[in-house]
Amino acid sequence: MTGDDSLKDVQNVGVDSGSDPAPAADEGGAGGRSGRRSRGSAGRRAQRGGAGPGTSMPYIKRKLKSYEVLDEEGLELIEANADTILEEIGIEFRDDSEIISLWKEAGADVRGERVHFPKGLCRQLLATAPETFTQHARNPARSVQIGGDATVFAPVYGPPFVRDLTGVRRYATLEDFRNFVKLAYMAPAMHHSGGTVCEPVDIPVNKRHLDMVYSHMRYTDKPFMGSVTAPERAEDTVEMCRILFGSDFVDQNCVVINLINANSPMVFDETMLGALKVYARANQAAIVSPFILAGAMSPVTVAGTLTQVLAEVLAGAAVTQLVRPGAPVIFGTFAASISMQSGAPTFGTPEPSLVSYGAAQLARRLKLPFRTGGALCGSKVPDAQAAHETATTLNTTLMAGTNFALHAAGWLEGGLVASYEKFMIDCDQLGMLQRFSEGVDLSESGQALDAIREVGPGSHYLGCAHTQANFQTAFYRSALTDNNSYEQWLADGEKRIEDRARQQCQEWLDAYVAPDLDPSIDEALLAFMDAKKAAMPDAFS
Amino acid sequence: MTGDDSLKDVQNVGVDSGSDPAPAADEGGAGGRSGRRSRGSAGRRAQRGGAGPGTSMPYIKRKLKSYEVLDEEGLELIEANADTILEEIGIEFRDDSEIISLWKEAGADVRGERVHFPKGLCRQLLATAPETFTQHARNPARSVQIGGDATVFAPVYGPPFVRDLTGVRRYATLEDFRNFVKLAYMAPAMHHSGGTVCEPVDIPVNKRHLDMVYSHMRYTDKPFMGSVTAPERAEDTVEMCRILFGSDFVDQNCVVINLINANSPMVFDETMLGALKVYARANQAAIVSPFILAGAMSPVTVAGTLTQVLAEVLAGAAVTQLVRPGAPVIFGTFAASISMQSGAPTFGTPEPSLVSYGAAQLARRLKLPFRTGGALCGSKVPDAQAAHETATTLNTTLMAGTNFALHAAGWLEGGLVASYEKFMIDCDQLGMLQRFSEGVDLSESGQALDAIREVGPGSHYLGCAHTQANFQTAFYRSALTDNNSYEQWLADGEKRIEDRARQQCQEWLDAYVAPDLDPSIDEALLAFMDAKKAAMPDAFS
Repeated sequence: MTGDDSLKDVQNVGVDSGSDPAPAADEGGAGGRSGRRSRGSAGRRAQRGGAGPGTSMPYIKRKLKSYEVLDEEGLELIEANADTILEEIGIEFRDDSEIISLWKEAGADVRGERVHFPKGLCRQLLATAPETFTQHARNPARSVQIGGDATVFAPVYGPPFVRDLTGVRRYATLEDFRNFVKLAYMAPAMHHSGGTVCEPVDIPVNKRHLDMVYSHMRYTDKPFMGSVTAPERAEDTVEMCRILFGSDFVDQNCVVINLINANSPMVFDETMLGALKVYARANQAAIVSPFILAGAMSPVTVAGTLTQVLAEVLAGAAVTQLVRPGAPVIFGTFAASISMQSGAPTFGTPEPSLVSYGAAQLARRLKLPFRTGGALCGSKVPDAQAAHETATTLNTTLMAGTNFALHAAGWLEGGLVASYEKFMIDCDQLGMLQRFSEGVDLSESGQALDAIREVGPGSHYLGCAHTQANFQTAFYRSALTDNNSYEQWLADGEKRIEDRARQQCQEWLDAYVAPDLDPSIDEALLAFMDAKKAAMPDAFS
Repeated sequence: MTGDDSLKDVQNVGVDSGSDPAPAADEGGAGGRSGRRSRGSAGRRAQRGGAGPGTSMPYIKRKLKSYEVLDEEGLELIEANADTILEEIGIEFRDDSEIISLWKEAGADVRGERVHFPKGLCRQLLATAPETFTQHARNPARSVQIGGDATVFAPVYGPPFVRDLTGVRRYATLEDFRNFVKLAYMAPAMHHSGGTVCEPVDIPVNKRHLDMVYSHMRYTDKPFMGSVTAPERAEDTVEMCRILFGSDFVDQNCVVINLINANSPMVFDETMLGALKVYARANQAAIVSPFILAGAMSPVTVAGTLTQVLAEVLAGAAVTQLVRPGAPVIFGTFAASISMQSGAPTFGTPEPSLVSYGAAQLARRLKLPFRTGGALCGSKVPDAQAAHETATTLNTTLMAGTNFALHAAGWLEGGLVASYEKFMIDCDQLGMLQRFSEGVDLSESGQALDAIREVGPGSHYLGCAHTQANFQTAFYRSALTDNNSYEQWLADGEKRIEDRARQQCQEWLDAYVAPDLDPSIDEALLAFMDAKKAAMPDAFS
């Protein structure tokens, strides 16, 4: 760590876990992070423009309360049942003797790989996990609060396919990956760069994590996620973070968030546990997330699913505190159902919404940040099915009080496909949700009593002084929806929203300008990657 | 009123204003209404099948709480400002000397057509309006509760155009009108037949109300709305209701709901006041609804809009109680914004959602049933724009605790078009909302602890006893969404949801069977219409 000015700026934003960086509109990356490795390039990035076509929006600080579907009695019932699962049935931690030993030391009843938990043990361990923390971005103006009244939107995670701008569905490439990073950088209401925005299938499977992490470091200055597909890839992620942020800074601050899925029901596997340990040791955040298709990985009921989710999160999240007390950890839920006729996953239906609302309540009672939802849908194309499923899930995501919303844009076809068109449509909707979350302005201007007096019965407000003073910011403006007359719409070529989204997407990609990165850091990152890649043969499975 | 058995059934359901007909799945119209005119045909309609392809769902009894965006302080502020509008600015009642006289007698300060209200006068008058009431359908199983924890969905109201099943946008006809009545009759989660489901432009403007009301009486047995376009048309509606339900029954019960729009800002006109008086005198329900495109008819702010809406509803709704204390009246709001660039109306944006949530809170404090929302959108086609705008509005409608949701299916292009495809897509979403409103089942089966015990770590729930016992009803099943594999979807012809909706719509129309209607009632209705039509020349404007 060096003492240069840029770093002081960073520290003022809030270095400590649990601190609260004030959300602020994009200020051009002033302060930067380029001096972190004491190469004296602080401020070189200052004066760069915003994140793209619009003014960047900070993460959401919700002014509205969260919606609740369970009362105290229901919550206590589910918590008691989860305790019963933990004590009586137990959770399996497979192929990881270190974690088994940690559980024994902590006082759990371990039988082979099955761990049974005395009542209250997991909750007690989780008392050291922060209720809110800051994930730092290399541009301090982009740092985000995770937890409390904050909501952070991140792009789709994991699709092996894309639907590209020519409408073709094909395997994703590194170029697609970079494109989605660029689009997320430019989208005003996208607060995070995400992780595996799509799988760059053209890069060897044992090396692509390097290109992914590098892309998040190079082509955006928003916060991002790390690799979890093997412990050594998690180590590489942490190492690259140390190059970007400085080793001491990384040890004391969260700079990367990582998605650790449970193998529901009630199993954590070697791969996920390996990555979880690497990140917890490095003081980086894990989202411990049961991946639930209700009816297959959990009971066919909402309450049963919530019970199992809570038990899995309690056990999995507590591991982070066994490894390093105080390490940030997020209560995650991926909620979908399956069609009981075909077995196919379904999204945007009533039951997953109820699961998300309920799980958010359980997480708040645990004093852990919460992740669920996103722009989930099962449709193959960005049609009205996709939009209905997405809108219902996104509305639920926000109104549940979700803190970290993965998959908030671009998700199509049950997550198999990252869609350029849908990414743009979803981002527009995220802007609306962000505006909604600001609630009702009750200031004197908000009350507008003078406007009502001025206009009076039978007139209109179009020209009145209050409207003139406020019209530019009064209503959320969508660049994608068409509200013109039918005749104008005909004259414009009878476009559907995906046509407008495709056009906007191409315009954004054409207009993209990368945020500055200290060349010495860039060189160090590239050198690290080259060395890593050279040290192992390509693997494609 | 006669003393036959079918009528006793009706009375048991709840004859009094404010009574609560238990929601029940369709039971084949047992009891009927055919004996109402003492022609002894009671029970002839019994044993008829349900309302179409699925089991009919009763109106919604919400088990979840309503979402709120204003706290006590905010609500009091808006209420105080509304009182200021009423007292200081006043409301205009145009071209209706009777209502002006009524206001003078009630103690208002009347200056020409402008009425100023002493603080508290309107609230005091509204104390006689019922907090909940029953709107009776000719099939008692279809009667609906208006108010309290009930939500009733009704179709789109008012479009002069349709988008038909060949994709053509054209003027609506009486055949279209009948088709939408039939579809609403068959849609399981559509609780109401609505009113002007489209304008039958092929029928003379001064006669079409007769065909519309007759269609709601003949082709469905769900509750419906009356004509408000002229006082004499309202009288015709009431007269036809007397033929269908019996005069005494109509005098003592609500059998028709009517949409009375304010001419915002702060004006009620002769036409609306004339219809309002006819219905209130007949003890029939009025929805007093400021039609608000915020920025044009109200201030550009949410709080300012809410203030004006409250003032307008207080003044307009109180008129019903001046005419007939105890007449049912609904607090209505139509909330949209305008594009401050083009002046075009916009839907599904954050600000109208906030207006709907806030207005619902204000209505509950007034102890009046509440109407807002629906499947509103500005898109010209049922694409992702239409669906996003619709989903956001429909979710808001339900979660605000709306009691009567007009426009809940079929609305397209800012309400200019009734779309067959969108009607089907919207109805599917209404089913999901109805399921969501049931909340979380916390019974022993809902908790599913035995299922979790049976399955244990690392297995799956597909075949377990609990899943086998519950899979058929566990999750909402959509007949329109596609969740198959990509390969299956390709093999099925790469259909979008509107393709499937078009097909489902044609199947429903082909399968439609009209509910029985006592032939003597049918003859009397037709004779009334013939006489009315013969008595005046056709008018087309």
